[in-house]
Parts: sequence; structure tokens; C-alpha cells
Amino acid sequence: MSSSDIFTSEVLGTMLLVLLGGGVCAAVNLKRSKAFEAGWVAVAFGWGFAVLTGAYVAQSSGAHLNPAVTLALAIKGDTPWGDVPVYMGSELLGAMIGAVLVWLAYYSQFQVTLREPDAAEMKDANPGQVHGVFFTSPEVRKPLLNFLTEVIATFVLIIAILTQGLVKDADGSVGLGRMGALITALVVVGIGLSLGGPTGYAINPVRDLGPRIIHAVLPLPNKGGSDWSYAWVPVVGPLAGAAIAAGVYNLAWG
Amino acid sequence: MSSSDIFTSEVLGTMLLVLLGGGVCAAVNLKRSKAFEAGWVAVAFGWGFAVLTGAYVAQSSGAHLNPAVTLALAIKGDTPWGDVPVYMGSELLGAMIGAVLVWLAYYSQFQVTLREPDAAEMKDANPGQVHGVFFTSPEVRKPLLNFLTEVIATFVLIIAILTQGLVKDADGSVGLGRMGALITALVVVGIGLSLGGPTGYAINPVRDLGPRIIHAVLPLPNKGGSDWSYAWVPVVGPLAGAAIAAGVYNLAWG
Amino acid sequence: MSSSDIFTSEVLGTMLLVLLGGGVCAAVNLKRSKAFEAGWVAVAFGWGFAVLTGAYVAQSSGAHLNPAVTLALAIKGDTPWGDVPVYMGSELLGAMIGAVLVWLAYYSQFQVTLREPDAAEMKDANPGQVHGVFFTSPEVRKPLLNFLTEVIATFVLIIAILTQGLVKDADGSVGLGRMGALITALVVVGIGLSLGGPTGYAINPVRDLGPRIIHAVLPLPNKGGSDWSYAWVPVVGPLAGAAIAAGVYNLAWG
Amino acid sequence: MSSSDIFTSEVLGTMLLVLLGGGVCAAVNLKRSKAFEAGWVAVAFGWGFAVLTGAYVAQSSGAHLNPAVTLALAIKGDTPWGDVPVYMGSELLGAMIGAVLVWLAYYSQFQVTLREPDAAEMKDANPGQVHGVFFTSPEVRKPLLNFLTEVIATFVLIIAILTQGLVKDADGSVGLGRMGALITALVVVGIGLSLGGPTGYAINPVRDLGPRIIHAVLPLPNKGGSDWSYAWVPVVGPLAGAAIAAGVYNLAWG
Repeated sequence: MSSSDIFTSEVLGTMLLVLLGGGVCAAVNLKRSKAFEAGWVAVAFGWGFAVLTGAYVAQSSGAHLNPAVTLALAIKGDTPWGDVPVYMGSELLGAMIGAVLVWLAYYSQFQVTLREPDAAEMKDANPGQVHGVFFTSPEVRKPLLNFLTEVIATFVLIIAILTQGLVKDADGSVGLGRMGALITALVVVGIGLSLGGPTGYAINPVRDLGPRIIHAVLPLPNKGGSDWSYAWVPVVGPLAGAAIAAGVYNLAWG
Repeated sequence: MSSSDIFTSEVLGTMLLVLLGGGVCAAVNLKRSKAFEAGWVAVAFGWGFAVLTGAYVAQSSGAHLNPAVTLALAIKGDTPWGDVPVYMGSELLGAMIGAVLVWLAYYSQFQVTLREPDAAEMKDANPGQVHGVFFTSPEVRKPLLNFLTEVIATFVLIIAILTQGLVKDADGSVGLGRMGALITALVVVGIGLSLGGPTGYAINPVRDLGPRIIHAVLPLPNKGGSDWSYAWVPVVGPLAGAAIAAGVYNLAWG
Repeated sequence: MSSSDIFTSEVLGTMLLVLLGGGVCAAVNLKRSKAFEAGWVAVAFGWGFAVLTGAYVAQSSGAHLNPAVTLALAIKGDTPWGDVPVYMGSELLGAMIGAVLVWLAYYSQFQVTLREPDAAEMKDANPGQVHGVFFTSPEVRKPLLNFLTEVIATFVLIIAILTQGLVKDADGSVGLGRMGALITALVVVGIGLSLGGPTGYAINPVRDLGPRIIHAVLPLPNKGGSDWSYAWVPVVGPLAGAAIAAGVYNLAWG
Repeated sequence: MSSSDIFTSEVLGTMLLVLLGGGVCAAVNLKRSKAFEAGWVAVAFGWGFAVLTGAYVAQSSGAHLNPAVTLALAIKGDTPWGDVPVYMGSELLGAMIGAVLVWLAYYSQFQVTLREPDAAEMKDANPGQVHGVFFTSPEVRKPLLNFLTEVIATFVLIIAILTQGLVKDADGSVGLGRMGALITALVVVGIGLSLGGPTGYAINPVRDLGPRIIHAVLPLPNKGGSDWSYAWVPVVGPLAGAAIAAGVYNLAWG
């Protein structure tokens, strides 16, 4: 397909991914949200169904939505290397637009959370709650271990995606389709529930980098820094995990 | 299909949508319900499976269940403009019937919640708990921002629905079918988890207006007003979001 | 198919339905269970996936598992009236066996809950917790209103099941299949979340009557009575809801 | 297929099963995890989607992932007895590797939970929290009753898997496929919600034995013993449940 078709589809799809994924973090982290403190099950399903929505809408370009997916499919040989830059660029742009939309949808909640310490709720204004809407942070900051966690979690995602070429539907056909989008989404719910505990599971470079850039430029009061010293982990970790998964796939079934 | 076939199918489907959707709000908000305070995950899945049930039953008319869907499909050209009035009228009537059925199913719970302040539970009779069963209310009342949130949330719903024409199943066929109903339902769960925090996500004019009319006429004790000053937001916001989604769809894939 | 084939399939399927459905009530209600007080979301999904398991295993007989389903399919004309007794008898027997298996699987938990008031947890031995494993009880005991709630909830289940004949899969085929079993299961999750609050949603005569009979005969210490005065509601209500749904179906699409 | 193909597929699939399944136990049990104390719903869905991921990736070998499945399919005649050793050996090895990956992904969380009693959280360092990541423990330790619970829970799993040969998809085909992997995964969620309360539902010998061996050899501080006296229950119970299920299947539909 043409570069402009890839661009349109991946921008829209990744925008939806980050709008809904960042949205559930806003819903759970920000004050005066009906879902405030709804818990980790809400976060994991919210991100999973964000993948479902983005993957469904971006199907015409294969719904990568994630440079780690693009890299793995290029290594496997399904995506031409010449298409990789337009995929990755579109994904980053989509993620940035998605983060802006989260900010607009939750505008009042950001204001309340950042401006108004609420003694009655015994919670102070907390930039960290807002950080969690835009980028991941580790619970225990040890970058090499955090990197390892992202590698492992992304390996799971990518090996499941690559395997789709192996799985035949009842009629013998292969490919993503609705069923593939659904299963990938539920695998992402599973990764969130199971491997999201230490680092918040970026498993996608642009899902973290795009909103982090937006956090750095948005006029949010008391927003704190954008934690750039950690930013390499959720970018390099997922790419490394994807490369390992593609290698294992090629060894096992290539 | 004939207008009377559309009427029957959309009335039944939207009735089921609002019966189950309003039902989960009653289940979680009203005292002496086994699901009292079951949390936002319950609400989001409850509304999603309400869509699943209504979409499944109303499949013969395309299962719009929502004037925003009807508007978008008319703009796209899938639904004749001449059918729009019967679709929208049926949807509104179905939503009103659904709200009455919620009231009947939870009759005792409404009575207890509205009549009997319960000191032991340290919760007073609260009309707001009952409002939440019938219509949406924003957490921070700023109508233009609330409108924007509804536009964004409905955009997500509609772009996903319009995309169904792009997605091929394994056998090359397209169309809603069971799988499309399921995926749409899970997208709605996702919208609820991710974008429901600020306004309670009407994303459907009749889901809000129909039950609001019923709230105004039902003989509920201490029910409070029906908050008509806010009523335009969950009607106009979803329609605007649908029109934008249809425009984006036509630009991207039309 | 032969009566003995119906018998085998429906006994096994309904046994699994009640084993898993009663099991989740035991898991959440009984002390010293890892899922103790896991909440209404657990209950609703537990019952839904109980339906999925039973419906999947009993597919060769159409997976009724519920006299309300059998009655509706007989009214619609899909099930011969002559087969109704063997269906209903098998369903009741399966439900009774399922309840015995719940008791065996949670034997120690029943003992602890009934024998050992635990001051540290500030919960006394409570026969009501055990009742909830076997049969439904209304939160507000007003039998006619409780009956109405069961009629409404069962109407939703049955209209969705009857509609399966209308819904074509992507390849044009109809029928339950795996996808139909899945959607029916998720509709049941939705009914639980949305309409289970007032009465605990029997929506199936044998799901309530079978375990109630077992409760009456099992040698449980301090088990209390089996609440026979309420037993007609979860039997007659679902049958009435099924008959109404079949009538509405015939009017709308018959 | 060749033994080496079975080996590759089953090692990878079972590794993913235990990585995600053990992962959700770590996520919920260990301190400084974002999902700490997320509850039983998280555990049940986490294990279910662990099965989904493993079953999807290991489809080329039939995705047994579990000696109980292998035994049942051998009894039914779908798997040659000569392949049983390579299946079971691969499953055990995969489970051991998966447990090591859980330890690496949650390295800091293990350290914090085992080394640092946190008075502020009023929770002491607790080897039991770490045990739950590796192996199952009964809530009430009565081995014969615990064995019975495992037999019943595994019976449910295996009868549902064996039935797949009976269930036709819409196009008349049979077999696991994506839909079969999804339904099996949701059945496992159901088993967890409904029958996991007493023993933590091993329902798979290697899911318990593999990580228990790893627990015994890993250099974890204050890790406590590996509870070998209980280890036979989650090995023999699932195998017995599988044999009973295969017998019932052969009687009912063989």
C-alpha cells in the first residue's frame, strides 16, 4: 500500500490507542473522575480495549501501532524495511495527538488534580498522578532491571503477534481479522495484569515517548519534570524485546 | 427493509440497551442492591454487554440503537436519509421503555434509596444516586468542556463502527455479524473505562434523553429535578462527534 | 436426537453450569476461600463463564441447561413438545449433581463458615452466607416485585437466545456454535451486572430449585431452613419471562 | 509432527503460560507492584489470558501446555502414547523457564517483599507471599479434600477441552483455532473464579511442580521451604481429574 495510506491508518490507530490508554490512566489517577481509584483491573482492561479499538480501525495498514511491532515484522520479512520509517513516524505522531486528546477530554480533572490539594480526601496535589497519564514510571527505579522487565513483557506481545501467521482459522485462512484483533487485545490485558506491576508496561516506544513529549510542552500547572532520564527504558526495552522475539520466532518456526 | 421492521427491531434493541445500561447504574448506585458500590469496572462492563445484547437482538435493522450511529451511517451513505426519522424515533421510544423497565426491576431499591436515610450506613437519601440511573451528570460542570468530552468519546465509538466496512473476516466477508457486535461491545467497555470519567459517557443522545424524560414523569418520591439545563450536552455532543467521525472516515477511506 | 442423548448432554451441561455458578457464590461468600469477598464483578463473570462452559460441553443437545430456554424453544417451535420432559428432567438432575459437587469442592469452607464464628474477622457464623451458595434470596422481600424482576431479567436472556436464528455469521450460516455460546455467556454476565441486584437473578428454575433441594438434604451443621416460601419466585418468574419473550419474538419476527 | 517440533512449541507455550500466570501472582502478592492487592478477579483473568497466550503461540503442537491435557488426549486417542513423554517433558521444562522469567521480571519486588518489612504498611516480610508466586497452597490444609477439589476443577477443564471435537464452527469445521483458544481461556477464568477458592487451582501438574523446583533452587533471601509435603496434590489431582473426564467423555460421546 502507499505511504500515505499507511500514514493515515497508523496515525488514526495509534491516536485511538493512546487516547483510550492514556484515558484510562487519567480516569483512574485524576481526582473528580467517576473512575477515580478504580484499580488495576480497570487499567489493564482499558489498555487492552484501547489496543482493540486502534487495531480494528487501523486494519488496512496491518495495525502495527507500535514501533516494536513494526521492527519485528520487518525482521520477519512481512513489512518491507523501506516502509519502516513511515510506520514509526506515523505511530509517534498518532501517539502525540492521542495524548493531547486525553488532556482535552480530562481538562477539568487535570486542573483539579494539579491545583487543588484536597484535605478532605487527604491527598495533596501530586504531579506523579499526572505523570502516570502520560508516561510510565518504575515502582523501584533500577534502570537495568526495569529494562529487563520491558524486554520480557514485549517479548510476550511480539511472539503472540508473530504467531498469527501460524494460526489457521476454522476455514483455513490466516491473518489478523477481527478475531486476531480481539485475541491480541486480550493478550495485552494479560500482559498488563501479569507483567505490568514493576514498570507500568510501556511495551511500545511511542506509547511512552509521544505522550512524554506532549507532557513536556503542555501548559499544565505544577506539572513537574518529564523524567527524561528514564525515557530510554520504555523505548529501547520494547525494541530489544521485539528483536529477541523475532529471533526466537525465526529459530522455532522460520 | 420496511419502516415497521426498522421500528420493531430498533425499539426492542434500544429498550434492551437502556434496560441493561440503566440497570447496572441502578445496581451500583441504589441501596439494597447486591451490586451496591461494585465500582466502575462493573459499570463499564455492564454498559458494554448492554450494547452487545441490544446489538445482537436488533441485528435485522443494523442495530443502530443510537441517533449518533444513525447520523454517521447516513452521512457515510449506508442508511438512506429517508429512514433517519424512523430510526431516531424508534431509538428514543425504546430508550424510554427501557428506563421504565429499570424502574420496575429495581422498584424496591428506588423506594429504599429515596425514602429511608440509613444512619447505620452513614448514607442519606440522595436524589443524585437516582439521577445517575436515568441520566448522565458531569463531575465538574463546565458545559463546553463536558461537550468536548462527549464529542471525543463518541468520535471513538463511531470511527470504530464505520471501520467495520473495512475489516474483512477470515473468509473475506464484511458486515456486523456476531463478531462485529462483540467487538463493538468491547469498544464500548473501553470507552467507558477510558473516557467515562468526566461526564459518565452518554455517547448516545437517546440513552440520556429518553430516561431523563421518564425521570421527569415517574412518581418517584424526593426525586429532585431532572437537570434539564445540562440535557443538551449529551444530545448535541454525541451527534457532533458522530459527524466529525463520519467526515474523518470519508477523508481517510471514503 | 434420542432422549438418552439429550439426557446425557443436558445433565452434564447443567451440572457444569451449577458447579461453576454455585462455585463462584461459594468462592465469594465462604470464609477461608481465596476469593472471599471478591465482589459482584467476580460473581457476574463467574456465572457467565459457567454458562459458557456448560453451553460448550452440551452443544450436541442444543445446550438448553434451563427449563426457561426449553419452554421458549418449544413455543417457538424449535424443540418438539414431546422432548420437553426429558430436557427439563435432565436439567433438574444436572443442577442437583452440580450442587453436590460445589459442596464437595468447598467442603472445608462450608465447615469453617458454619462452625467457627471468627471474632477477629468480626463475622459470625452465618447460614445466610451458605444459603447464597445454593439458592437466590431477594434483598427486599416483596414476592410480586421479586417475581417481576425475574420476569424482566429472564426476558432479556430468552429474547437474546431466540434471536440467534436471525443472526447470520460472516459466512451466512446460523446456529449456536462457539460464537453463539460466547455471546450468550456474555449476555448472562450483563444480566448479572445489570439486573442481578434485587433478587440475585435466578433466570433459570433448576439453577435455584435443584441446589435448594440439595441444601435441604445435605448434612450441613447450622444450615438453617431452605426458604421454601420463596422457592416459587425463581421457578415461575423465569418461565413467565420466557413465555413473554417467545410471544414478543413471534410477534416481531415470527 | 516431529518430537522436536512438539518440544519447541510446548516449551515456548508453557513458558508463556507460567510467565504470565506466575506473573499475575507476583503482581498481586508482591510489594511495590502497581497491581499489589488487585484482588481475585485480576488473578483469575490473568491466568485465563496466560492460557490464551500460551495456547495461541503453541498451536502448532495442539497447545497442550499441561500433562493433564496430554493424558486426556492420549486416553481419548487424539495423541499417540509415544508422544506423551516429549509433551510432558517439554511442559515441565517450559514451566521451569517461565518461573525463572517471573523472578527476573519482578526481581526488585521479590527483594523488597523478602528483605524489607514495612511497618508503615503494617505488613511484615512474608515468605508466604512469595510462595504464592511459585506454587499453590490450600487455605485449609486437608490433603484428601484438597485433592478432591483439584480433581473436580480439572475435570471441568478437561471435559471442556475434549468437547471441542464435538463443537462445529459455523462453517462446519472443528478444531481448536483462535476461537477454541479463546473459549478455553475463558473457561479457565471461570474455573479460577468458581473453583479456585480452596486450593488456588493448579489444574496442571507442571504449573505447580515446575515453579516449585525453581523456588527450591533460586537464591531468594528468607524464602522459606518449598512445601514439598503438599506437592503431590497439585500433580496427582489434575491427572486423576483428567482421567475421569476422559472416561466420562468416552461414555457420553465416545
